[in-house]
Amino acid sequence: MSQADGELYDSFLDHVRRYNYLGDAAGVLSWDQQVMMPPDGTPARSKQVSTLSTLRHELLTEGKVGELLAELDGEVDAEKQAVVREVRREHERASRVPERLVEALSETSSEALPVWEQAKADADFSQFEDELAELVELRREYAAAIDPDRDPYAVLVEEFEPYIPYEQIEAILEELRTELPPLIEAVGESETTVADPFDGSYDEAKQEQLVRTALDELGYDWDRGRLDTAPHPFSTGTQFDARVTTRFSPADPLDALASTIHEFGHASYTLGLPDEEYGTPLGSARDLSIHESQSRLWENHVGRSTGFWEFFAPTVEETLGVEATPRAFYESANEVYDDNPIRVEADELTYHMHIVVRFEIERDLIRGDLAVGDVPKLWNEKMEEYLGIRPETDAEGCLQDIHWTYGNFGYFPTYSLGSMLAAQLFATASEEIDGLDRQITAGEFEPLSEWLTAEIHRHGCRYETPELIRQATGEELTADYFLSYAEEKYGDLYDLG
Amino acid sequence: MSQADGELYDSFLDHVRRYNYLGDAAGVLSWDQQVMMPPDGTPARSKQVSTLSTLRHELLTEGKVGELLAELDGEVDAEKQAVVREVRREHERASRVPERLVEALSETSSEALPVWEQAKADADFSQFEDELAELVELRREYAAAIDPDRDPYAVLVEEFEPYIPYEQIEAILEELRTELPPLIEAVGESETTVADPFDGSYDEAKQEQLVRTALDELGYDWDRGRLDTAPHPFSTGTQFDARVTTRFSPADPLDALASTIHEFGHASYTLGLPDEEYGTPLGSARDLSIHESQSRLWENHVGRSTGFWEFFAPTVEETLGVEATPRAFYESANEVYDDNPIRVEADELTYHMHIVVRFEIERDLIRGDLAVGDVPKLWNEKMEEYLGIRPETDAEGCLQDIHWTYGNFGYFPTYSLGSMLAAQLFATASEEIDGLDRQITAGEFEPLSEWLTAEIHRHGCRYETPELIRQATGEELTADYFLSYAEEKYGDLYDLG
Repeated sequence: MSQADGELYDSFLDHVRRYNYLGDAAGVLSWDQQVMMPPDGTPARSKQVSTLSTLRHELLTEGKVGELLAELDGEVDAEKQAVVREVRREHERASRVPERLVEALSETSSEALPVWEQAKADADFSQFEDELAELVELRREYAAAIDPDRDPYAVLVEEFEPYIPYEQIEAILEELRTELPPLIEAVGESETTVADPFDGSYDEAKQEQLVRTALDELGYDWDRGRLDTAPHPFSTGTQFDARVTTRFSPADPLDALASTIHEFGHASYTLGLPDEEYGTPLGSARDLSIHESQSRLWENHVGRSTGFWEFFAPTVEETLGVEATPRAFYESANEVYDDNPIRVEADELTYHMHIVVRFEIERDLIRGDLAVGDVPKLWNEKMEEYLGIRPETDAEGCLQDIHWTYGNFGYFPTYSLGSMLAAQLFATASEEIDGLDRQITAGEFEPLSEWLTAEIHRHGCRYETPELIRQATGEELTADYFLSYAEEKYGDLYDLG
Repeated sequence: MSQADGELYDSFLDHVRRYNYLGDAAGVLSWDQQVMMPPDGTPARSKQVSTLSTLRHELLTEGKVGELLAELDGEVDAEKQAVVREVRREHERASRVPERLVEALSETSSEALPVWEQAKADADFSQFEDELAELVELRREYAAAIDPDRDPYAVLVEEFEPYIPYEQIEAILEELRTELPPLIEAVGESETTVADPFDGSYDEAKQEQLVRTALDELGYDWDRGRLDTAPHPFSTGTQFDARVTTRFSPADPLDALASTIHEFGHASYTLGLPDEEYGTPLGSARDLSIHESQSRLWENHVGRSTGFWEFFAPTVEETLGVEATPRAFYESANEVYDDNPIRVEADELTYHMHIVVRFEIERDLIRGDLAVGDVPKLWNEKMEEYLGIRPETDAEGCLQDIHWTYGNFGYFPTYSLGSMLAAQLFATASEEIDGLDRQITAGEFEPLSEWLTAEIHRHGCRYETPELIRQATGEELTADYFLSYAEEKYGDLYDLG
């Protein structure tokens, strides 16, 4: 590369960093809003956040960016090539969407939020119907602006998972729809009841002590993180400051524990990104499926394993005063709820049918194959078909999740993809790390953490998602590992023989 | 105004709002950094904050702003005129300073911070001398860039207090230098000892309960605020979200209480700004002297008054278990420390001599009349002359404050101006509010709050500072009220006859 090209790249990278720094600033504002902000702070915060968002859009779509991208085309250095690829993708998508559409989406979802909240409180979909119809219409326009010649739903899924081909995503979800219901049905028909040693009310201070101990043991870096509570637990930040949140419900300390371990998985990904690439795509996390694979690997394959409970049972006994065998805790952590209509409360197995219902409905909405008014009925029919559950009200049905209110269509599939990849990565880790199960039983989590950092975290966005998965696991993303894992785990738990 | 002018003004105001929203976003990041951020978060946070700062500078100095200001010149609507005036002032100052100088100042003060910390820890000024010399030189250049024909120190003071003429500020500080030392000396020679009912160690939870009760009683709006701890208490935010911080030291619960009431005063100013003008100069606080007048009025004229202690003594008794008369608490809250070399620990009386020392030294530094190497010696001489105290080390002397390390010269005077104005405003309020003292004794703070909001807060930056003071008090800013107040208060406390 000539000196002039080097300067060109540096100036390009400065611009990219500025864009990303503003995004991280917005992340701090959002964390504060969910965790710290006093209740009446919203009007000012909304202005601050939307200003950052507008400025980011302007930085991304500036004519200068297009010119720099054109001049940097054919860059041969692999790392620089990756940076150019990631920025080009975002620049091109953002440039195709007219500003009025971006604003309309933002305004409509702001307006839709209180309407959805009220509709949910009243368990009355009809209140929300017009808002949802408008959001669907705007997202259809949005998809058409990006590419009028393609399936609009596929275009929207790429917003969250840009590199895994849509056909592959659809095939995996169809496989889950075919393969899981028989297993769920068998569990439902099983005579076996799993143990549940939790029958009291557990105070918040003790639950907090429990989850803090879990974070200590898992190796969370408190110099670069913190734990707080939030109504909907989340994780956010950068490799220098990756925070987690959790929530406590008196009767269910395992919910706080599972949430905390889940968010730890997200944070450990963020903390594993290279410091020196902060602000560039090489120092930023790959997309949602990969992120979710990290949270679910820790939540399910570690935190819901027999080995983990061998190790952690004494801590739960000491902290909460619950006496039970490791096996009993393990069973309790893995109980299948075959009568639960709520996605976020679902177990590891039925969870994916909740996703399939949403996926099929939102896909048909965006494709124009389903009228908004027909959503509640279809939702309930699908819940009955796939899970044998009929939600009693719309609040327990199609109004339960916030995603559509934010105008996010195409997001849900990444949750299931994350689980598939978690199983696939854990299977590979089990082969490559000598004695991984034994380590988990001994509370030694560092070898697994280091393996994940080496295979996934440290690469940032250097590779497109399928290539990253191939390098880490030696094959394409597949549901096979999850399905074998589920059959083995629940076969054992529910004596399916 | 024609329709075209109206549109011009609207587009101008949108730009101004964007600038201010970014400033408030930076304020949230700074609050988080001081209160919540994990210790290793600094590298990322610095990048985020400096990006916001650069973007704000660009927004303020953009050619478009100059053009809009020119086109809006002669705007007749008084409110719009005020907005144009405030923005023009900032635009013109910022535009005169070359970007390399802004960056050099920012980099030098970043580098100076750890050097100052180490020098202070080692009580060794020589370690910090080169950094201070560079900061002085850069600020001299900065002042010259803004106006090469004027006293550079006066130009820097305008950074913090733009509208009160420098000559008036200097005259007030000289008056304090003349009038206060005899009073301080008389207090020092007095045989009277004030009461001090605090002789134990008071746990943080109880102290926190005490200051929260104080905030409740003063009328702090918890829906638009919150209380946390910080090493150096501060207040920050907007009219929708104005937060306060405090700190607790085991032996000195009155320190936490005074800090909290001080920050409450700042926050009540912020909360009194009009909601509907958020993001414009009409919805922003006037400059530092006015802000400090609000904090000091509440801290000193309310929180250190006999009436307040009549009201609040039972709460202190109940919360901390300290039994004493209201008079004893009042005396303790007003003790003069005639052997204290530290500004932030100074009482209401000696405080201003700490300011005069800094003012005289920094003025001479910036004017080029004092060599940086001579600062420690001169500092100690002045402390001895004005306060009869000789600091034992540089850590207790010229290294104690952080302001110069940030490159802030010209800031200190606003602290004293704030006290002068606090006394002047309180004297006016006492005349205009029927039974103010009685109300304070009864714990009724709302009439005073409302008066301050009507006279000061709600105007934002509509008036230049001297005009705002005139409208509220009927006269120019003067030290008279503070001096009479001090003579009366300390005459009584120390039986000066």
